[in-house]
Amino acid sequence: MTRVGVVGASGYTGGELLRILINHPKVEVTVATSREHAGDYVYRVHPHLRKLTDLKFVKPEIDLIADRCDLVFLAVPHGTSVNITPKLVEAGLKVIDLSADFRFRDASQYPIWYGWEHPYPDLLKKAVYGLPELHREEIKSAQLVANPGCIATSAILSLAPAVKHGLIDAEKIIVDAKIGSSGAGMEASLATHHPEHFTMVRVYKPYGHRHTGEIEQELSFVSGRPVKVAMTPHAINIVRGILTTAHCFLTREVKVPELWKNYREMYGGEPFVRIVREQRGLHRLPDPKNVVGSNFCDVGFEVDARCGRLIAIGALDNLVKGAAGQAVQNMNIMLGFDEREGLQLTGVRPV
Amino acid sequence: MTRVGVVGASGYTGGELLRILINHPKVEVTVATSREHAGDYVYRVHPHLRKLTDLKFVKPEIDLIADRCDLVFLAVPHGTSVNITPKLVEAGLKVIDLSADFRFRDASQYPIWYGWEHPYPDLLKKAVYGLPELHREEIKSAQLVANPGCIATSAILSLAPAVKHGLIDAEKIIVDAKIGSSGAGMEASLATHHPEHFTMVRVYKPYGHRHTGEIEQELSFVSGRPVKVAMTPHAINIVRGILTTAHCFLTREVKVPELWKNYREMYGGEPFVRIVREQRGLHRLPDPKNVVGSNFCDVGFEVDARCGRLIAIGALDNLVKGAAGQAVQNMNIMLGFDEREGLQLTGVRPV
Amino acid sequence: MTRVGVVGASGYTGGELLRILINHPKVEVTVATSREHAGDYVYRVHPHLRKLTDLKFVKPEIDLIADRCDLVFLAVPHGTSVNITPKLVEAGLKVIDLSADFRFRDASQYPIWYGWEHPYPDLLKKAVYGLPELHREEIKSAQLVANPGCIATSAILSLAPAVKHGLIDAEKIIVDAKIGSSGAGMEASLATHHPEHFTMVRVYKPYGHRHTGEIEQELSFVSGRPVKVAMTPHAINIVRGILTTAHCFLTREVKVPELWKNYREMYGGEPFVRIVREQRGLHRLPDPKNVVGSNFCDVGFEVDARCGRLIAIGALDNLVKGAAGQAVQNMNIMLGFDEREGLQLTGVRPV
Amino acid sequence: MTRVGVVGASGYTGGELLRILINHPKVEVTVATSREHAGDYVYRVHPHLRKLTDLKFVKPEIDLIADRCDLVFLAVPHGTSVNITPKLVEAGLKVIDLSADFRFRDASQYPIWYGWEHPYPDLLKKAVYGLPELHREEIKSAQLVANPGCIATSAILSLAPAVKHGLIDAEKIIVDAKIGSSGAGMEASLATHHPEHFTMVRVYKPYGHRHTGEIEQELSFVSGRPVKVAMTPHAINIVRGILTTAHCFLTREVKVPELWKNYREMYGGEPFVRIVREQRGLHRLPDPKNVVGSNFCDVGFEVDARCGRLIAIGALDNLVKGAAGQAVQNMNIMLGFDEREGLQLTGVRPV
Repeated sequence: MTRVGVVGASGYTGGELLRILINHPKVEVTVATSREHAGDYVYRVHPHLRKLTDLKFVKPEIDLIADRCDLVFLAVPHGTSVNITPKLVEAGLKVIDLSADFRFRDASQYPIWYGWEHPYPDLLKKAVYGLPELHREEIKSAQLVANPGCIATSAILSLAPAVKHGLIDAEKIIVDAKIGSSGAGMEASLATHHPEHFTMVRVYKPYGHRHTGEIEQELSFVSGRPVKVAMTPHAINIVRGILTTAHCFLTREVKVPELWKNYREMYGGEPFVRIVREQRGLHRLPDPKNVVGSNFCDVGFEVDARCGRLIAIGALDNLVKGAAGQAVQNMNIMLGFDEREGLQLTGVRPV
Repeated sequence: MTRVGVVGASGYTGGELLRILINHPKVEVTVATSREHAGDYVYRVHPHLRKLTDLKFVKPEIDLIADRCDLVFLAVPHGTSVNITPKLVEAGLKVIDLSADFRFRDASQYPIWYGWEHPYPDLLKKAVYGLPELHREEIKSAQLVANPGCIATSAILSLAPAVKHGLIDAEKIIVDAKIGSSGAGMEASLATHHPEHFTMVRVYKPYGHRHTGEIEQELSFVSGRPVKVAMTPHAINIVRGILTTAHCFLTREVKVPELWKNYREMYGGEPFVRIVREQRGLHRLPDPKNVVGSNFCDVGFEVDARCGRLIAIGALDNLVKGAAGQAVQNMNIMLGFDEREGLQLTGVRPV
Repeated sequence: MTRVGVVGASGYTGGELLRILINHPKVEVTVATSREHAGDYVYRVHPHLRKLTDLKFVKPEIDLIADRCDLVFLAVPHGTSVNITPKLVEAGLKVIDLSADFRFRDASQYPIWYGWEHPYPDLLKKAVYGLPELHREEIKSAQLVANPGCIATSAILSLAPAVKHGLIDAEKIIVDAKIGSSGAGMEASLATHHPEHFTMVRVYKPYGHRHTGEIEQELSFVSGRPVKVAMTPHAINIVRGILTTAHCFLTREVKVPELWKNYREMYGGEPFVRIVREQRGLHRLPDPKNVVGSNFCDVGFEVDARCGRLIAIGALDNLVKGAAGQAVQNMNIMLGFDEREGLQLTGVRPV
Repeated sequence: MTRVGVVGASGYTGGELLRILINHPKVEVTVATSREHAGDYVYRVHPHLRKLTDLKFVKPEIDLIADRCDLVFLAVPHGTSVNITPKLVEAGLKVIDLSADFRFRDASQYPIWYGWEHPYPDLLKKAVYGLPELHREEIKSAQLVANPGCIATSAILSLAPAVKHGLIDAEKIIVDAKIGSSGAGMEASLATHHPEHFTMVRVYKPYGHRHTGEIEQELSFVSGRPVKVAMTPHAINIVRGILTTAHCFLTREVKVPELWKNYREMYGGEPFVRIVREQRGLHRLPDPKNVVGSNFCDVGFEVDARCGRLIAIGALDNLVKGAAGQAVQNMNIMLGFDEREGLQLTGVRPV
């Protein structure tokens, strides 16, 4: 059994990591940290885990983590991970960082999107962007994996096949994202106060959302040329789930069979990407409702011939494929396990 | 135009008072206080009021309020009103207090339900419990009206006719209440954090809820004998609205026509109580969905003959008939206006 | 009192018309039709109207309507109105049609967007598109007004100032719309079954939605040149409300003050359009939550300089400014009343 | 691998059975029936199962089922199962019936609660009520198990320890239940139309709900004396989950430690019952939010000494412990598997 730790285990992403890891047949959770809840049972914060684990939270101390773990997940805020990660890497642990602190290959992106200089540009170069569908080989041998952002995962996966084949104008990609409240974390605020958040539809960041940079980095990688993305996220009245609707302008006439071919080619063998494009029934295109609790990212597309537009749609559970599930998928790859191990989570529906 | 003030105007109840009062043809809002937002436009906190009022918040200062208002609404927390009210009363203003600080006639109830001694037992005696259906005459000449609690209004109105006629065992009245999140006020907390509050059903006070004392006081008044109520409120996944389901044991065989007669007798002439008991269709019994935004309390009943049980149901909008609407109804009575003035709010449905 | 009728009064739009009209000081509702519920009280279908009206539904018969009404609202399905309207017009009534049957000026649009030939192209020419902000003068003297679509109203109003001044590429306008379930009407189906609709985010018409044609017609009118719009509506987990997020490409560098000027110029004097663009607080941009129950359309904008993008946002209540409220606004204009009469509905918030 | 079939596999309960069974290590799903969807892939109706199973629906034919299955789950409406079950039993299959058709031991209950005479009273006697916590031994050797109702499971489990020890007045047990919309099944109707069901709180059966009979049967069994239950279910704005709040009158003074002892004694060794009664934090008592997707029934209690009242609370996922999960638990017992097999479903939270 590989010994794994979860740093920042009292938040929603931490809870989701624990949910998955305590059922994983090849690892043992040896550390779950929380400053606030140290000493308390995990199930007091995560009541769905009652009777499933006797784990208690401990304070986040590097030595203890290094001592008890072979691999560690960092589910801490942006800007916190950057201070912990170098020490853990140096101590020889494998690290999967769920924050944004090691997602950019180019340190110059940090001042642009996060407003601070990255203190460890060399470590950035060693980090691998943990999207298995694009970087599986590098992940295998990585010591440090930067787990992608939730909106980013959905946008990148739904757009990659079209971008790869140069079907769309790479300068005019619109991503209109809709996201559930769990993405805001466990910190209460007026914005997420139930009377305020219930039934609103709020453009909370009209432009300049941080995930934009990641999407551009990865789609540029796929395309081989610079890609520009204009992304606007909306908070909506759900807890889990992200839908990204990308509106793109086709560079030439493209028909649906060609898109099918491109999407199948890229995702036919992927365990956690499903292409959803039905011609009848209620479930024709991706909908986050259909992936709640599972590690799938559903992708789909339509062609609006009148406007020369491609609509590329992605849906995922922001806490699973958008965070904890993808992190465990990365762990499985890093440790040489079957990539599906511990992730045969069936989505719970309807919910 | 009577000059009215709203103390505590930045909360949900304050916002609801403003919504009603700015459309009221016989009063003018001259003061809206908020410590936190003093100097700012009301519509920045209550965005639905944009373009409807140019009012700005001011600090809550007794002299200013006394100077500019003939009547004042106190929408402040329990325990705050008790310090302000005596001064305003002394200054000659009419006061409608939406807190619980003057609801009990008997000062000895405060240590029991609120944990503190009431410093003004004499003022308590002058206060009138502002439920027009029970105390209309006293309200007419009152200087200080204690506006009822939201759950209490629903429970009392739905049970009063049965209690009055001695149809139910007054020692074994169960009230199972369901309440929306706006009842928690505008203060964010983990309990009302959208990811936590959405889809939960939470017994937040199994017994001992403060409104219980009010219900007992008023039903005892109606009955002429002591009444005991066991009440349990549940937080549910709505924002506005309260449903109270009272389960009572009949003292003798009672049939539906007798109940109709009793309820009609009591509420037939009431402008804001509707008896809802249909035999077909979807809308057979009270449902808070049907009163959102309006000042109605819907009441209904059923007889479970097999168990000798009366089910008495009440539904209201906790911010309207459960707070601001009822307060304005009291104001209309105190000032000799038509009781309906400014309250021809039609419920908004569906919502 | 002008005598008005509502044809199709048992649906959500019909209910909303009744809610507004029964409180309107200058009209009297003389007819409310429903085939299914003829003979029954209106409040059995619209339980929020109980005790507010004694009206009963009657069968929809042209003679009776012509006899009892001066003006009639048609809240019937697309394709039904086209058969009734000519008779009512001929009978001399003023008609406000809430369906799409008379919205296009050019009959050739019907086969494209609705799949049928319009049988009365001459009547089409006499009809006025009932968006007061663009066609107030024509509405004054119109006998037949075609009330705009709900998504169309939000998209047109939020985009018009930018389109008018040629600030955006008129060939590449993306409108990503989010809409509540009441837009689907009162007919139950699997798509709107609560377990299916709750928490989904469904692209229900990736391209080719019928409102697209209206938006193009009106923005072309504003612009003086052909405008092309690519619109994708999403069903979301709310009942009332529409948010339209338009993503457009600027034709030149544009700064926020210029936009302020353009929006103020167009809407400064409008009673039912509010410009919402705050720099702090929670309520910075339009959100349908802030207009529930009111006749406002909130519009706002942001400039994404990095991408040369204008984000234009509109929010309204699909049953009020998106349907019944706008229809009453049109009625007020047609009958020479104050445009605000009966529409001082304050939004209900939070809800 | 035991071969199992699901009759009525296109509904929500059927979908939940498939979700659990396709991951169960010791059984293989060989038949999934649906009249309407025969020939179609299961994932077209249950989109969360896409890529997880290639199963197609088949028509429900007894011979085919008998031929291909060792054990069959019946997830069909009440009144349908009674016609199928005898044939399947005769063919030698083990049957787990999720309808109510074999839940009563006494045939005379069917006319009372369901309005029809039971045609197979002898078969009734052979059927075992499939609540493992009460009937584990009989289930082991049963050929026909009647899976309990969802509300019944929650009410019985939360009340059994108190009833067993005679702590409460067995003539005056009130159960106030709150239930999500998935309990209504997949059939669309006005009652479950999203605009109608969203934010309502509807007493849909004030008295006489069918589960009442089951609860009385089982609590009488536990008690050894007749028990009378007055139950009122409420539809609320969630999809999954049931909360039962039982209000009971204590027969003598009872303190919390005695209750702890009684509940621990009964459930200490149970794999799927958790006692939840914390003194601090947000999660003090059972809440269906904490069991979504899992097979747990959470039970808790409080004593209202002032009123001599016991509040006994139960929470479960109506599709799991309230239906499919409990059915698989029964299957495990019948087939001699570990009772937990295939049921290590962790609840998904928050959702």
